[in-house]
This record gives sequence, C-alpha cells and structure tokens, in this order.
Amino acid sequence: MTRPPLHVPELVLPPAAQPGMTLAQVDTPSLLLDLDAFERNLDRMQAHAARAGVALRPHAKAHKCPAIALAQVARGAVGVCCQKVSEALPFMRAGVSDIHVSNEIAGPAKARMLATLARHARLSVCVDAAQQVAVLAEAASAAEARLTVLVEIDVGQRRCGVGDAEQALALVDCIDRHPSLRFGGLQAYHGGAQHRRTRDERREEARRAAEKTGKVLVRLQTAGVTCDVVTGGGTGSVEFDLASGVYTEVQPGSYVFMDGDYGRNEWADAFRFEQSLYIDVEVMSVAAGDRVIVDAGLKSMAVDSGLPGIRHAPGDASGAASALRYVAANDEHGIIETDSGALPPLGTRLLLVPGHCDPTLNLYDEIIGFRGETVECVWAVAARGFSR
Amino acid sequence: MTRPPLHVPELVLPPAAQPGMTLAQVDTPSLLLDLDAFERNLDRMQAHAARAGVALRPHAKAHKCPAIALAQVARGAVGVCCQKVSEALPFMRAGVSDIHVSNEIAGPAKARMLATLARHARLSVCVDAAQQVAVLAEAASAAEARLTVLVEIDVGQRRCGVGDAEQALALVDCIDRHPSLRFGGLQAYHGGAQHRRTRDERREEARRAAEKTGKVLVRLQTAGVTCDVVTGGGTGSVEFDLASGVYTEVQPGSYVFMDGDYGRNEWADAFRFEQSLYIDVEVMSVAAGDRVIVDAGLKSMAVDSGLPGIRHAPGDASGAASALRYVAANDEHGIIETDSGALPPLGTRLLLVPGHCDPTLNLYDEIIGFRGETVECVWAVAARGFSR
Repeated sequence: MTRPPLHVPELVLPPAAQPGMTLAQVDTPSLLLDLDAFERNLDRMQAHAARAGVALRPHAKAHKCPAIALAQVARGAVGVCCQKVSEALPFMRAGVSDIHVSNEIAGPAKARMLATLARHARLSVCVDAAQQVAVLAEAASAAEARLTVLVEIDVGQRRCGVGDAEQALALVDCIDRHPSLRFGGLQAYHGGAQHRRTRDERREEARRAAEKTGKVLVRLQTAGVTCDVVTGGGTGSVEFDLASGVYTEVQPGSYVFMDGDYGRNEWADAFRFEQSLYIDVEVMSVAAGDRVIVDAGLKSMAVDSGLPGIRHAPGDASGAASALRYVAANDEHGIIETDSGALPPLGTRLLLVPGHCDPTLNLYDEIIGFRGETVECVWAVAARGFSR
Repeated sequence: MTRPPLHVPELVLPPAAQPGMTLAQVDTPSLLLDLDAFERNLDRMQAHAARAGVALRPHAKAHKCPAIALAQVARGAVGVCCQKVSEALPFMRAGVSDIHVSNEIAGPAKARMLATLARHARLSVCVDAAQQVAVLAEAASAAEARLTVLVEIDVGQRRCGVGDAEQALALVDCIDRHPSLRFGGLQAYHGGAQHRRTRDERREEARRAAEKTGKVLVRLQTAGVTCDVVTGGGTGSVEFDLASGVYTEVQPGSYVFMDGDYGRNEWADAFRFEQSLYIDVEVMSVAAGDRVIVDAGLKSMAVDSGLPGIRHAPGDASGAASALRYVAANDEHGIIETDSGALPPLGTRLLLVPGHCDPTLNLYDEIIGFRGETVECVWAVAARGFSR
C-alpha cells in the first residue's frame, strides 16, 4: 500500500457552497436556509415576546449555530438556552454572554466545565436533586465562580423536574447554603405539549403547566423566596405561555426553521412560522423505473418524526411536487415514488422538508443561507456533535 | 453584550477521554469500542474471506474511521468501499490507496472530485445509466485521470442497478467508448437481504442474487466481456456470498461493531460477530421516581432500527441490566424504565447497544477504544458528515 501525499491541494474537499453561487451550483446533500423566511420568523417571535413583556431566550439546541444566535440576540433576545454544557462553548466563543443550560447534570467533570465557563459569561443551569446541587457547589467553589441555579419542576412531561412545591423549596434551601451558588428561579418546560396537533390540546397542556407553576411560585413566595426567572415554553406552546402571566422568559427553538412534524400542527395565524429549512438533494439513480433514488438518507436527516416532505422550490405550494413521496430512507439513499405523474429525471434537484429539525441540524457542519436563487452566506453549525 | 476573550485556555472543551484513563473517567455520552471484541471481529472476517479465496473490501461507511480501515488493510483487506465520493478523502489522506465508491453519482461536481482523487489512488465507482458514464468520462478526461467503472446490477433491492444483462452490456459498451474509463466488472449488492432475521431467508435472497449475477456474467462472457471484479455482499449475507462462487470480493461493514438490529438476526456460529460498540451514558435525573433519565437521545444514537439495548458492562450477559429498558429517545434525553427491580441511582453509568451502527457512528467525532477498564486509544471518525 502506497501512502499518497498528504498536503497536495487537490486532496481538500471543495466547499459545498460559497457566497455568490447560484443554488444550482451547491453540492448535495446540503442544508439550505431560506433567509427571507428565517428573518421573518426571528422578527415575528421577537415581536410576540416584546408585546407580551416576556423575555425571549431562544433555544440554541435547535440550530447549534452561533451566527443564528447572534441574529436572535441582535433582535432583542436576552441570550440563548443550551441543552448541554459543552454546547455552550461555541456560542460563548462567538460572543453570546448569557446562556442558560436548560438541563440537569450529574457528574463532576461536567460541573467543572460549567464552572470554568461561568468565569467568562453569565451561566445558569437546572437541578432536580440535592446531589446535583452539591456537585455544582463544589465545582463553582473550586473555580472561584458563581453559578446561577434554577430548580426545574415537572409540569407534565414526566422527564426531569421535581414533582411539587415542597421538593422545590427543599432544593432552594439547599442552593442557598452554598455561597458559590445563587438561586435564579424556576424552569417549567413541557416538551410533549409542543407536538400535540390541535391548538385546544396545546392550550390545555400549557394551562395545566402554568397552573402548576403558579402554585409553586405562591408557595415559594409564602416562604419568602423570590423567583427572578420563570423559564419554559417552546414553539408549539409559546402562544399560550406568553399569555399565561407566569413565565418571565420563553425558550422556543424550532420556530427558526420549522419542520414536517411542526408543520402538521394546527396553528393560530399569528404563530404560524414559515418553513425556512430544506435539504437539497439530487436524483442519482433512475434505473429501477418505477421509483427514483436521491443522495440523502439516514445520515442526512433525522427520521424519528417521520420521513421528509418534498418541494421543488422554497415556499413551493403549487403542488408541483406533491405527487412525489419520499417512502424510505437507507443510510445514504432516499427512495422516491409517485402516486401519479412523471418521476423526475436523473440529476433533478429536489428540496426536502425534514421531519424533525433539531437532530437533522446535528448532522451538518454548515447551513447554506440563500435569498432567491443566490447563496448569501455559509454558517458553521459550530455546536454540532457537542452532546457532552 | 460583552464579547468574552476568545483564546483563553479555559474555553477549550476538554477531551472526552485520553489513553490511560479508566472508563469511569470518560465523559458522557461517548462512543466506546471494546478493542478485544473488535479485533476478533476483524480477524474472523479476514479468515473467512481468505479461506474462501475471496477478497475482503470492508465497507468504510460503517465506521468512517481511517484507523479502522488501516487495521482492516493490515489484516489483508484489499482496500475499502466508500458510499460517497467525499467520504473517500479522509481514508486517502490516511494512506488507503484502493477505494471503491459503491454507488452512483449524477452531477459533474462530484465527478470532478472523483477524477481528482483518482490521480492519487486506485478509485472505482458504479454506474447504472449512460448519462452517468458520460459525466464520469468528461471529468476523468479533463483531470487526465483514469477511472475504473463497475456496472451495478439490481439483484433484488430495487434501489440502484440495471435490471438485466442486456442493459449491463449496453453500459459496458458505453464505458468502452471512453479512453478515460476502464470497465472493472459488476456490483451486485442486496441491502435488504442483510437484515432478514432467519438464515434460511438470507440464504434464499443471497442465492437469488448470486443466480442473477451469474446469468449476467455468462451473457457478458458470451459477448467477450471479462469482469475482473464482482463485488457485493454484506455482514448479513456474507456467509452465503463467500460460498456462492460468483463474488470475487465482498464488502461487509457492520461486522466490525454489530448492533441491536443485527443482534436480532439468527446466525451460524462461525459468522456470529461480537458486539464491540457501546454508547456510554450517565443517569442525570431520577426525580420522576418511576423512571430515570440518561444524557443520550436522538443526537447521540440512530433510532431508525429500534431503541438501544442496555448493558452494565461490555459483554455483560449476566442479565444484571436486563430489567432496564430504554423506552423513549428525546433530542438529548433517554428515558429508562424497569419491569422489575431497582432503578439505577443518579450518576450511574450504563452502556447502550445502538440499534443501527452506521448512522450512530455518523453522530460522533471520536471512537474511544478500551481494553478491560482502560482507555487505549481515541480514534477520529474523520469521515463523519462526509455525505457529499
């Protein structure tokens, strides 16, 4: 086996896209962002939050992209949420100075990392057990940092969070015993409520979440405990969370892009965000005759919330592609069939609407922003894979 | 918003693991490789191929890891398969000099890239349409490279590949008309056959695939066309592919790691490869009481072939963890319940067996190799995300 030369210029992968290219010149599969729709989504959510007098802290786990976080902060977001400690790092490096880790951590290594980061930015984190408080206190003390700690309460998801006000109060006492920690308030998030199909279902879940949160707040107040922050809510419930009077800030993420799953929800017109995210694919085999094969499968999209939809062009509502169905995802292949009409020829470009945006973003290193038919920017998904 | 200093040493993510660490010191979630089981898998497959007198060209799409490709080549593999043109690049840079792109490409940009790479290593690719041949010929000619082209035939998967011998012969003629291309033989791969549960089903699918391939070979021979290579087969069918007398080389990939889906297959003892791949996770919330939450969900594992299994330690067959079930994957959370017995306490480490290894590997930048309780190596998944 001969070892080929390592640093010859030819052995570098050409970029999938560069600003100024036409969309037809972008290599596939690639993640495309319709910048007009994206900016309207950002503006709309910020306006809703401002009108309600509630802070917007968008969830960066949806995009993992510092350029998008900065665009959100520039419009008035108070900072971002991250779901993992490591995920915060690329955002801090890009200049985002206020990050809430909307999750619990158990181990001392993660606590040390969080405490180290807290020396450089305002960082908060959630707890739902005294053991987590102890781990955080020791790490913050050792790093000579001060960490803001929120108590998470379970408002219906049965995932993380304490079950009642007494447990919350016990954790507040626990936090208050450590000078390296500061009690910041409550997190009350119900992930499952985001994806209920009808507005009525989501309104009811959000009402119950707000009601429970309100009861905990009253109990804490009675005990002399002030909650500076009550954070929660997502794209699916934000309409109701903003109106609840309970939340001081909301954490929606997916509204930036939307996806097939959210597209199946029923929305009020004012809260119907636009699909801005697409996977650009190419028909690479038509030999089977009654189906065609595109160059994007399980390694280019998450399928946990269903297979992708198909459009010929961004915003396409003409139905031109509606007869095409993406029927199966193999690792690197997608199988496309049609109910009626012609199949697209070899080399045809199609835009897929991913079923679930968050884990799809986590597969790509770049987002290619376009306006009309022209690539305008290529943004790094700098927190891709930062799952620790 | 203040921009924090960028190059302070504290703002670098600590590595998840380093050689010499104990497994308990590895940060989670991480991808662990049991090196003893891994090496036995590599040795076993190489021995099977050698005994059959068939070349082994393992599929690198399963691991995307140059260190693993070099370990396969060192044992006698003739090279590797890649599924995408870009995927070949990290393997070439590591010194793998013979790569078969076991797939079709439609666009001129990909053909140009392939032709450029072909100046530095032996590269082959598949076609199933005359238009693909023309695109490859033009790119190879422009790059002053020579590309080896295999005609893919459909042997039952109904994905890529021509349907019969006459179509194959027409493509061979087409390839022969271009001096920059060389006809290399046939690809006959049946992906669906790999995952049939019983050996009888897989034997029958493999028999049909070999029978069809044999007929095409006879027709080509009659027309004076020699096939240097007949390539195909996978981990599920390799037992039968090796014995078929039709294949000159086989392309199994998953045997290196195995996964939950392959684990549900029925195997002959000699072809039962060992589970070597695990996702190391930590219990990060126990507040719900009747379930616990681990720190790995959809961004840390592919769930297209089912949710992960759970073990307490590599190779664990004690049933100690058998009462635990991973029942739901959220983006960053996994929900674990038990049918009987105690739930693990906060901070407990568990090993998950991913349902599908290939797209799981594509989520990680590193594989942490261990022996016993000690980390021995950290290998880059250098082709992760190389899907173009």
